[in-house]
Parts: sequence; structure tokens; C-alpha cells
Amino acid sequence: MSSERPDRRGFLCGTLGAAAAGAWMTSCGDGATTDEAVTEAPGLPDGLDPADFQVHQENPLVLEAKREHQRGLVTPTDKVFVRGNLPLPPASILDDRAAWTVEVGGVANPRAVTVGELQRMRPITVAAVLQCSGNGRKYFPHGASGSPWGVGAAANVIWSGVRVADVVDALGGPKGEGLKYLTGSGGEVLPEGFDDAARAERSVPMERALAEGILALQMNGEPLTLAHGGPVRLVVPGFYGVNNVKFVRALALTAEQSTVRMQQKSYRVRPVGESSSPDQPSMYEMNVKSWITGPLGTAAAGSLQVTGVAFSGESPIESVEVTTDGGASWSRAELVGPDLGRYAWRTFAYPWDAAAGTHVLASRATDRNGSVQPETPPQNERGYAHNGWRDPAVTVEIA
Amino acid sequence: MSSERPDRRGFLCGTLGAAAAGAWMTSCGDGATTDEAVTEAPGLPDGLDPADFQVHQENPLVLEAKREHQRGLVTPTDKVFVRGNLPLPPASILDDRAAWTVEVGGVANPRAVTVGELQRMRPITVAAVLQCSGNGRKYFPHGASGSPWGVGAAANVIWSGVRVADVVDALGGPKGEGLKYLTGSGGEVLPEGFDDAARAERSVPMERALAEGILALQMNGEPLTLAHGGPVRLVVPGFYGVNNVKFVRALALTAEQSTVRMQQKSYRVRPVGESSSPDQPSMYEMNVKSWITGPLGTAAAGSLQVTGVAFSGESPIESVEVTTDGGASWSRAELVGPDLGRYAWRTFAYPWDAAAGTHVLASRATDRNGSVQPETPPQNERGYAHNGWRDPAVTVEIA
Repeated sequence: MSSERPDRRGFLCGTLGAAAAGAWMTSCGDGATTDEAVTEAPGLPDGLDPADFQVHQENPLVLEAKREHQRGLVTPTDKVFVRGNLPLPPASILDDRAAWTVEVGGVANPRAVTVGELQRMRPITVAAVLQCSGNGRKYFPHGASGSPWGVGAAANVIWSGVRVADVVDALGGPKGEGLKYLTGSGGEVLPEGFDDAARAERSVPMERALAEGILALQMNGEPLTLAHGGPVRLVVPGFYGVNNVKFVRALALTAEQSTVRMQQKSYRVRPVGESSSPDQPSMYEMNVKSWITGPLGTAAAGSLQVTGVAFSGESPIESVEVTTDGGASWSRAELVGPDLGRYAWRTFAYPWDAAAGTHVLASRATDRNGSVQPETPPQNERGYAHNGWRDPAVTVEIA
Repeated sequence: MSSERPDRRGFLCGTLGAAAAGAWMTSCGDGATTDEAVTEAPGLPDGLDPADFQVHQENPLVLEAKREHQRGLVTPTDKVFVRGNLPLPPASILDDRAAWTVEVGGVANPRAVTVGELQRMRPITVAAVLQCSGNGRKYFPHGASGSPWGVGAAANVIWSGVRVADVVDALGGPKGEGLKYLTGSGGEVLPEGFDDAARAERSVPMERALAEGILALQMNGEPLTLAHGGPVRLVVPGFYGVNNVKFVRALALTAEQSTVRMQQKSYRVRPVGESSSPDQPSMYEMNVKSWITGPLGTAAAGSLQVTGVAFSGESPIESVEVTTDGGASWSRAELVGPDLGRYAWRTFAYPWDAAAGTHVLASRATDRNGSVQPETPPQNERGYAHNGWRDPAVTVEIA
């Protein structure tokens, strides 16, 4: 079984072990397609409404949010995109959240910490963008393999939990030779036939993880749902979603990166056509990005608002420009609403006197480091880190 | 029909004109009780879950949120308390939001403005506490009449819409003799037998309304639900909920206050036993307030977090103190999470080394004006504006 393209395969090359088994069409392994009998619409996790998402690859764990649901300063939980590389653990893991354990290592006093213990520690609340590494993948011209996201694999949410650093401190601080990473392991049960290297595990730079990392217990004021990683999820604000390991079962300060494919081979940025290698850059910090959330489709002529969202994992947003003529001219937009902090997105608006005709609208954000969205992003084999302004432009018919 | 105690009466002294008719028990008019046959559990609006609320007076429009659902920085929409003095308009008013009209007067060019027009105006987003005037009413010792709220008639939400001032400006600015108020009228259909003075209408000081008032189209990033006043609600951040007129049908700058009972007689603060009069203070700006959201009930001994929320309509929160011994001693709590602006609540936490036994936990907030929560609030006939720290204290058993 090739390990190179887990996204294209979905995760369905073993048994599903779930009620939805048999209700899916799957494209597996070397590309052979298995058409299972579709007896009913695939059930989405957590009671999510299929009408709110674009379900890619007929996989209920590849749910793209709609642009019109990205207009809020905070994205409602039931409108947040969903992506899982492995089947969800059974929902029963949420029956007794407090009893869930996280094995913590690379500290002076390694041991299993329960969620119940985390709930009694100093709380932290951070608003941050959650975005899939492959958000925008469908725009890459070479047809990058993986979930074909437009802009909908992103949301702005409020995480609450405890600092990773506080947990490490409570266990006596870091202990080990040459510690450089925080490695988090997910609690998914591997389907039959999957080898151990298919596990969900990520290693992130220790310095950033200790400065900003959270063990999140809540999203948007409610206990984390299963699809979003409950009972506890590792969140590194400003980093791509894959680093935010769900259902965290183990957390360790380590000298080396994890040996799983998700760390060694996947999520590596490389030129188109090149093979993966661990010395290529891994998908950590998100780049500066923005897109239009309205108007979409058609609108009546006259004064209206062009709206959108903008963020950067590197630094706060400095400004956003909007074009209504496909990039020929640009005007500065106004940031709208309270600033939720450097890892959150800003919503913006630009007043536009729209004349009848066809118009191409796009936005271009600049962060405080001076990074500006390019017209076209760096091309790369797996279609990661898309932040070009032209591809997600919207064409609007003004009548 | 007495107009003095609309809360005690519920709104059910005429026909319901709703599907829920016959499913309620109502206490009407001069105090006579009408026991309608209860054929089924009363349906809550917008598909809200009865398990998430305390349903007071068997009225699906008197829904108190649970304390444990007030822990978030932003309250999820489906956990926000609901209060309506009149039956909801038919849900069909949301079928075509853009077509809903608001008649705007007291301006140079008075006319009906559609929600569609508002959607094309400059947007604003403000986080603000929504709180019923009678939140805490059940704590008043004289048994104030009205919905017997504890702390659950409050939420922190994100409103999006347009500034009232921008609408007024677009219509040529204020025009009229001695304009002093902004008067908003709700779109409820009066039940048969209700006189015109029962209408939902409020007048708020014009200066504040033009400085801060919003015509809100969204709550928490989604179009306003019916129970929360969709398609458009007047919101005056920092003011009590009654001023936030739902389903706004008319909005006018006026020289005088509305003549309806909701303005003239209800929502007036007066000594216990005294009758209502229009020269008594009206329920406008919210006072400084806080309460504990956890722990609740029982907890194991050891280090844990005392959490809560704090806000003031008058000025930002300066500090919060917590007592774990019923007020004998106080310690400063830490404010947690981003500051969403002066009208939003802050969440706070205080680390507590809890010993076995029974403990009384309470919080006391101070705002930047120097206002401090009193131990016991000013007593008043209708049980408004409760902000005492002692009554909402929680008793916790530590084992």
C-alpha cells in the first residue's frame, strides 16, 4: 500500500468499523475504485448538516465549509470544516471526558495526565484560525493530489484549555537529551491492515509549542466535539491544522521528529514532480492569506459591501486591499470588529459602487512582517499553503 | 386588564395564534389562572433543546440558560436565554429577510428601509452582553413579580449589522423639534384582546443610540434567529435587553418617549410597594456584575479553578475578586482570554486549593469607573438590575 497520498485515498483502505460502512464510495490503494452499494446518504459526524458543507470524495471526514459561512468573526462550530485522515474513534470516548488520559513524556516526571486534571489547571482562551494545509489545493494547475479544497477548509474559532507549558512545568519541566520537538499522538484506532506508520502523530518545534501550544478542551465555549478532536486536542495557534493533533493520547518533548509517515513523508513542501523527503520544509506556520466572502454570484447595481477574511500565522494583519477589476486596481478595505488576537482572522469590508456587468473581486492582505499575498503561490507537489490572491477570486454578475 | 405585571401574566391573555396554543398553562390578567390542557411538551422556538434551559412559567419564551453554558467567552447561539413579552411573529418573516422593511422617521427623508438595503451598508461587529432587566429577580426577598431568573438571563454574543447613525445619516440626518430619543417598534402581532399600549416599543436616549446603536442582522456569525429578533434587531450595547427591540418594524428619532406600557409603566425602578410612574428611572444602562460559573455542586479536594464572567454597561471591567469563604476574604482573579471590547463580558479564573468541606463561592467585579458590586443590590418593586454578589453565590461540596 502506497503511503504517499493518503489524502487521495481517503482513509478507506481497511475496514471502516463504523455504522457508515457500506454507505461510501471509496478510491483506494493504487487507484482502483471500490463502488460500495450506496444505501443512504453518508452520515456526517456530530449530527452536522450535509447542506452546510461540500462533501468531497464522498467522505464524511472531508467536509468543506461554504464561503457564506465564513463571514462571521467567529465561525459557528457546526459550520467549521472537518478533515480526518483516519476514521474517528468511537463517540464513546466522550462519555467520560475527565477519564481520558494523555501520556506525557520528555519531562522530569513522566506520567499519564487525565482530562480531569487538565480541567483543574489554569485556563487559557485563544482565538485562532484553523486551516488545513491543503486549503486552496484545487487551484494548483498540476492537479495536486489530496482533498480538493477551495477556500473552505478554514475557520476562526475560540479555543479554551490549558497551556502545554503549564503541563510540562507541572511534571517537573523538560527532561532529556537535545529536546527539540513536541510530539503529539492521536487516539485514532488504526483500521485493520494499516501499519503503525499510518498513525496520526506530529512533531512541532518545541520552542513554539511551549510558547503558544494549548491542550484544548473546548471550541467556541462548548466541549470539543468528536470531529474536532474531543475530549482534548493539541492546538498550536498560527500553525496548519495537521499539527493540531486530535484526541491526544500522548504528548512528549522529543529530540527527534516522529517516524510516522504524516511527519516524515506527508506535509512536506517540494517542487512539483519531486518525491517526498524529511529534509523538505514541513507544514508548520501559516502564511498571510485572505479571500472574499461576499458578494457571491449576483447582486443588484449600486452601493454595496465587498467582505472577506484575512489572517497570517506569522504576524498580525496590517492591511487588506480589494480589487473589483480582477487586479487592475486596488483599494484599501476597512477591518471590521474587535481584534481577537494575532492568530485570529480579521473580517474586512470595502464599500463598492457596483455598476452593471461582470466583475472579478479579490483581496490581498499584508501582515506586520511586511509579507504580502502573491498573485500566484509557490507551486508544490502536494498543493500546500496556497495563498495566491487570484485563484480564489470571485466572479460577480451585477445587474 | 391590568398592565402592571406583564411578566407575571406571561403574554397569554388573548389568543395565541400559534401552533403551541393549548399546550401552555397561563396565569393571566388579575391573577386568575387558566389551565389549558397540556397535550404535549411546549415546543421551544428555533428548535432549541429543552434540556439546555430552565423553562419558567411553562412558557417557551421564558428560557433561562444554565450556568455551565455561560462559561464561554462567547455564548453559543443555541445556549442563549430567550425572553419574549409577546408571541413571536410567524417564522415566515424570515423567508425573505431582504424584503423586511423598517420605517425610519425623525430624519430629513423619512421612508421605509429594507433589510436588503441594510445588508449593503457599511458593516459593524460588536461583542456585547445581552441581559434581561430582571436577571437575578428570584433573589429579591419580597418576591418581585415577573420571570424568576437566577443568573441565566444573560449571554455574551457577537452582533453584526449596521450603525443606527449610518442609517440616520443616509436619510439626511435627524429632523424634528427637540429630538431626544430613538424609539424602536417591534414587529410582533398583538394577540386578540390586547390593546395598542401592549405593543413592544422602547425609547432610548438618542445620544447613546446614535453613538453606539446597531441594527443587528446577525448573532455569532449567522443570520438572527426568530427568537432573538430576526431579521433585524435594534441593539444598544451596554443597555438591558428590553431596549434591544426585536423584529424592528419602525425606528424614529422622537422628542418624547413612547406611550406604550413597556416604556411608561414597566421597566421603571422604584421602591418596593410603590406604583409605577414615568418619572422613575427606566432600565437603560447595565450596572457592574459578575458571577461564578464553576465549580458547581461537588468537586474533589485539591487545586482547581474558580471561574466566572464579569461585565459592566458603564465601563470596562477593571478587576474581579473571588471569595471561597462566603465573603470573609477575597482574592484577585485573573482575566482570561482576549478582551472583546467594553460591552462584552470577561471570563475570569482563580486558582483555589480546595479543602474538604462546604464552601460558599462568590465573585465581585469592579469597573473602570470605580463601581463595585454591592453585597446586596438596591431593593426595588419589580426586581430589576440585580447585581449583588451574595445572592448568586454557589455552595460547593468538596470531598
